[in-house]
Amino acid sequence: MKRKLETCFSPALYNTDEHVNWVVVIIDILRASSAICTAFANGAASILPVADASEARDYKSRGFLVAAERDGFVLDFADFGNSPFNFTRDKVEGKTIVYSTTNGTGIINQAASANSIAVGSFLNLGALSRWIIRQEKDTLLFCAGWKNRFNIEDSVCAGAFATKLMASGLFTTNCDSTLAAMDLWSLALHDLPGYIDKAAQRTRLRDKNLDDCIEFCLTIDFTDKIPVMKNGFLVDNIL
Amino acid sequence: MKRKLETCFSPALYNTDEHVNWVVVIIDILRASSAICTAFANGAASILPVADASEARDYKSRGFLVAAERDGFVLDFADFGNSPFNFTRDKVEGKTIVYSTTNGTGIINQAASANSIAVGSFLNLGALSRWIIRQEKDTLLFCAGWKNRFNIEDSVCAGAFATKLMASGLFTTNCDSTLAAMDLWSLALHDLPGYIDKAAQRTRLRDKNLDDCIEFCLTIDFTDKIPVMKNGFLVDNIL
Repeated sequence: MKRKLETCFSPALYNTDEHVNWVVVIIDILRASSAICTAFANGAASILPVADASEARDYKSRGFLVAAERDGFVLDFADFGNSPFNFTRDKVEGKTIVYSTTNGTGIINQAASANSIAVGSFLNLGALSRWIIRQEKDTLLFCAGWKNRFNIEDSVCAGAFATKLMASGLFTTNCDSTLAAMDLWSLALHDLPGYIDKAAQRTRLRDKNLDDCIEFCLTIDFTDKIPVMKNGFLVDNIL
Repeated sequence: MKRKLETCFSPALYNTDEHVNWVVVIIDILRASSAICTAFANGAASILPVADASEARDYKSRGFLVAAERDGFVLDFADFGNSPFNFTRDKVEGKTIVYSTTNGTGIINQAASANSIAVGSFLNLGALSRWIIRQEKDTLLFCAGWKNRFNIEDSVCAGAFATKLMASGLFTTNCDSTLAAMDLWSLALHDLPGYIDKAAQRTRLRDKNLDDCIEFCLTIDFTDKIPVMKNGFLVDNIL
């Protein structure tokens, strides 16, 4: 029997009860899920996602390396924010990073009842797709969106994953969000930066001069790392 | 200054506080909003939307004509369900119809704080677009979705309205849902029945042999009627 594939466009649309035994892929490409993939590509040992800024501050006072932002800005106590360019090898190699962002870490906690949680972005599109196929589970592509709204960049990325997974022949979908995401990807794939350029998040980042990393976040298959949740920490799946 | 245009893909994403002085267009094309447009095209005097089935039953016992369905099936006490084909001239001309459906009437109540509420479908795409332009208000295209989920058919219809409104040059949008809806419409417009064919709602209706009206619901500009809320009733805007 084929496995189910679904897509959720916003945390406000997520139904915990429906995905207890599923693989849930967290997609928040501008910028949390791209930053997490980059951290592992640069040798991070693990990442502890915390939703609450005060919890992140507490970890900082205990000596942890802390990445924390709200609405794109670095929180004052943190070592750095959530641009992938912050997660350089000299800073993160071998380290555990405590990480709190506007959307991304919140939805990781929301999906806690899933069978497994992975972090997806264009950066690990191919490798993570192959990993999902090996799991033999129903799979949900969970877009972080922006302040509970639908956003284009995460939806297009979900469409890229859905297109790969459906092409395997192992999945079936009766989910309109998945079909729409695949269609958006079909419009975007020939000029991904041009397509994402119209997205509201890109406008928001540009307004804050935080858009220098967008082109990098749209790099397909930059890394083979598969960040997955294990005992409350994100670790590279190989470990 | 240009007016704002936004799209909401699901009742679960609707924020009442943000749209108090807006025009809200309710879109639930399979089948409630199409049935409402058809009722007015066939001379209905007014429609009283009620969210609750027991309230609809109460009106029936007081002699009203009642249309009521849940999940596509006619409720046992009702005169008919929500296929547009039920709302024939001989049944509805000059009448007030009490109407309760799975999604459509619920979201009409949800949008009660808006400046004005209109009912949209492909059937009144051109006429309603011209009416919206005349209102000089920010405008929200509110898709009923299906059980709080995104659905393709309402999103594509929202995209058709958005494309017309943006072409007027009077609107601006910073809303990713609107941009995505317009893109889905751009993929669908050359073969609307073929595109909608893949939508989950179509599958659901076909499974119940309720799909005979779908082609009709995709007829663009069947009527010039503009169903709008006035004092708790939907009436033709001309009245």
